[in-house]
Amino acid sequence: MADERGRRPGSPQTRDEILEAAIAAFLAKGYRDTTIRGVAREAGVDPALVMHFFGNKDGLFEAAINGSMPVTLMVAALDGDEEHIAERLCRRYVELWEDPAHGPRMSAVLHAATATPAAADLLKHLMRTELLGPIARRLSRDHAEVRALLAASQLVGIAMLRYVLKVEPLASMPADVLAAAVAPTLQRYLTGALSLEEIAASR
Amino acid sequence: MADERGRRPGSPQTRDEILEAAIAAFLAKGYRDTTIRGVAREAGVDPALVMHFFGNKDGLFEAAINGSMPVTLMVAALDGDEEHIAERLCRRYVELWEDPAHGPRMSAVLHAATATPAAADLLKHLMRTELLGPIARRLSRDHAEVRALLAASQLVGIAMLRYVLKVEPLASMPADVLAAAVAPTLQRYLTGALSLEEIAASR
Repeated sequence: MADERGRRPGSPQTRDEILEAAIAAFLAKGYRDTTIRGVAREAGVDPALVMHFFGNKDGLFEAAINGSMPVTLMVAALDGDEEHIAERLCRRYVELWEDPAHGPRMSAVLHAATATPAAADLLKHLMRTELLGPIARRLSRDHAEVRALLAASQLVGIAMLRYVLKVEPLASMPADVLAAAVAPTLQRYLTGALSLEEIAASR
Repeated sequence: MADERGRRPGSPQTRDEILEAAIAAFLAKGYRDTTIRGVAREAGVDPALVMHFFGNKDGLFEAAINGSMPVTLMVAALDGDEEHIAERLCRRYVELWEDPAHGPRMSAVLHAATATPAAADLLKHLMRTELLGPIARRLSRDHAEVRALLAASQLVGIAMLRYVLKVEPLASMPADVLAAAVAPTLQRYLTGALSLEEIAASR
């Protein structure tokens, strides 16, 4: 539907403008209080055009999440030798959160996902298809998806305490000190010996 | 103010009933949409009585958080030999989240804290005074507060993915498999060698 050309109401540029307005609205007001009508007003278009591009509010939110979470940049940090995979991932993650173009949006997504089951489902879907799958495919050990999730749990927790709640002294800890403390955890989850097999087998 | 006796409008029982109504309201509607007036109505009292006990909405929320987060139970899990401190902490944390009396409330607190700076400040205050301080005092290594925070980051991340977002296969992983995977991380943060000193000194 976005394959039309030219600067017209239904053009890709208009789609981008609607998406920017949607991201701003989800960011400022959260999932529940963002409406198709309000986003259309901010973008200066008719609500019908928003629905033409994105279907409904969930479709708009899914596009906003996809436009907000720099998952490809995170996944790309995994390329390279497996020995330093955690260090690269950790540094990239911190860089993205501290980038004004990404951090506030990532924070908004995290909030929206705690607010409503619909938003949580969309974030889960994005995580599964865009983040955990690609990470798991890059790992050579078994239980790759569990490993990716354990690593994600550590990173999400860092985001919550350092960037969302801003708990000191974690919030102002230099990025390399943080990376040095956290990378061994990620490295163990991603490539180390975990007792997932033994315990699962013993049940 | 709660030192009055007897079953009267200003009695401790009434205070508890208001607090229960407040927890239910914050849980169902979040911080922003909960009002003194609405809580008073649910508790069957005058709004002035809510303000008599809790001052304002922030005071009510602080009391609700304190009543919702079983911090003393978490901290108590640290008592005992330091060698198994992480395993005890991890098991207690999972037990609390899976206890219907605690889990939904903890989830509500996590959501409220991502929603508004005021709520985040209150959770931070609670964490610092009731959770991180007591944990740090039980640790024999230096950088005790950073260690406690790193452990908290891992546990908060588990809560987000396992209990709030419910991402599979983490959500339905048996508690002992999860504890076995995560406990070494916590043990390292709480009692192991971290490179916090070297890196901080090199700056």
